[in-house]
Amino acid sequence: MKIAFLGLGIMGRPMAANLVKAGHEVSVWNRTPKNVEGARTAATPADAAKGVDVVWMCVADTSAVEHVLFGPNGIEGSLRPGMIVVDSSTIAPSATLKFTQRVRAKGADFVDAPVTGSKIGAEAGQLLFIVGGSEKSLATLDPLFAAMGKKYIRVGETGAGESAKIGMNLIIALMFEGLAEGLTLTKKLGVPSEILFDLVQNSMLRSGVSDYKGPFLLKRDFSPNFPLRLMHKDIRLMLESAGENGVKLPALEKVEEIYRQSAEGGLRDEDYIATIKTLEKLSGIS
Amino acid sequence: MKIAFLGLGIMGRPMAANLVKAGHEVSVWNRTPKNVEGARTAATPADAAKGVDVVWMCVADTSAVEHVLFGPNGIEGSLRPGMIVVDSSTIAPSATLKFTQRVRAKGADFVDAPVTGSKIGAEAGQLLFIVGGSEKSLATLDPLFAAMGKKYIRVGETGAGESAKIGMNLIIALMFEGLAEGLTLTKKLGVPSEILFDLVQNSMLRSGVSDYKGPFLLKRDFSPNFPLRLMHKDIRLMLESAGENGVKLPALEKVEEIYRQSAEGGLRDEDYIATIKTLEKLSGIS
Repeated sequence: MKIAFLGLGIMGRPMAANLVKAGHEVSVWNRTPKNVEGARTAATPADAAKGVDVVWMCVADTSAVEHVLFGPNGIEGSLRPGMIVVDSSTIAPSATLKFTQRVRAKGADFVDAPVTGSKIGAEAGQLLFIVGGSEKSLATLDPLFAAMGKKYIRVGETGAGESAKIGMNLIIALMFEGLAEGLTLTKKLGVPSEILFDLVQNSMLRSGVSDYKGPFLLKRDFSPNFPLRLMHKDIRLMLESAGENGVKLPALEKVEEIYRQSAEGGLRDEDYIATIKTLEKLSGIS
Repeated sequence: MKIAFLGLGIMGRPMAANLVKAGHEVSVWNRTPKNVEGARTAATPADAAKGVDVVWMCVADTSAVEHVLFGPNGIEGSLRPGMIVVDSSTIAPSATLKFTQRVRAKGADFVDAPVTGSKIGAEAGQLLFIVGGSEKSLATLDPLFAAMGKKYIRVGETGAGESAKIGMNLIIALMFEGLAEGLTLTKKLGVPSEILFDLVQNSMLRSGVSDYKGPFLLKRDFSPNFPLRLMHKDIRLMLESAGENGVKLPALEKVEEIYRQSAEGGLRDEDYIATIKTLEKLSGIS
């Protein structure tokens, strides 16, 4: 298939590379110019999208998606009936519904397909896609999902993917907050973090999150796999969606404050596990 | 060995039964009279503890431990050199250290051995003990741990077991809060909880907590395995220990409020997963 891939960040770049590897004809675009071996580098989203079957977006946030779609040099002018626009960015479900209306007005379809999994999962083609969209479009996209992910789960119609995705990231944020607050308290009480983590891993507390993030925490390696600024953005999305729908998320509201303090404290570009440094600082652990 | 087992609640009773099954001579006592087949029922803690090698406590909270140890008819008068007092209650680490001093003044030793695992784990002899105490006493206790649990992990000296235990329960409380807030938000956004849970179980979000609590949540079965009032008590312990030590636990403070509201709303004796009903109420889901 002919595919335009827009957004070559931590996740997008290996995703686009896996589409090339699977034999598709790929054009790529990124806000700051980047290349993917075997793909055509386009100057603008509109240029990348010219004559393709599928436009796949993986950009930072709601306003970046809006810009790529409808901004100057956005893809809107390149849309034609039968084309499918797929969004793997994590954005507000209400924004997805608005964008879908405008894209469908041009005869194209819109599918939201945010991903879970890390940079490593993206490189290995092991992502899990959380998908909202029509069954017809999903059937067309099936080989592309297969090239980038281990599977996709259809949650419902367009928009449902984003709803489920922010719910999952909410759970991750609080799971990690639990690890961080637990390690902070016990460290101050004199229990070595290695021992607490060993208990976690030998109990019902063990999870993919503890498996993946625990070793980095113990090594104090805060290099970004999922940058703090992006998790913070997602947390703000969750709270916005909650606000729009009258939902109360008391613990998450507090977690947002910790991310805000962490970002203001210079940790924006570290992994989100660096929020433990903010808790330690608040608790007099240096 | 001759063992006094004090406290025959959800966890204590099957633990005492497993000691009887392993061939030990067990006397039991409970605040409201209860029996364990094959054990002698004592009228008071002091009576139960007369002439035993080990006193094992599994009671509700710090004041219950204090009462069993030093209250009227407490075991203090029955203590003699060489005896070991083991506490499987979850109480404040600072209280454990105070009690240890008074017990050691009588020549007996004190070991804190709070447990993780549910009623089912207690019945199956599959508990994990988180232990603080001297290596000498732990060697003596080894066959008793083996009769009740799959293993024990020594965290450090007396008191360290309680510190690690409240850290683990803190992590559980926030892991579950994540599930509850995630399910509440996505339910309001129109994603069926069964689908969100399926995503959780197919991702790095899966944990022993989601494995164990998820199915009860989906069935809306709130019968108590770990009653809300006990988790609430533990959360208050964590916050007390944090306060004593200058530690800040921002998300947990909010979780405490939810448990308080839930308890005031009549959910004290349901499982702690019933806190989701409080979140749903706050969010206009009925």
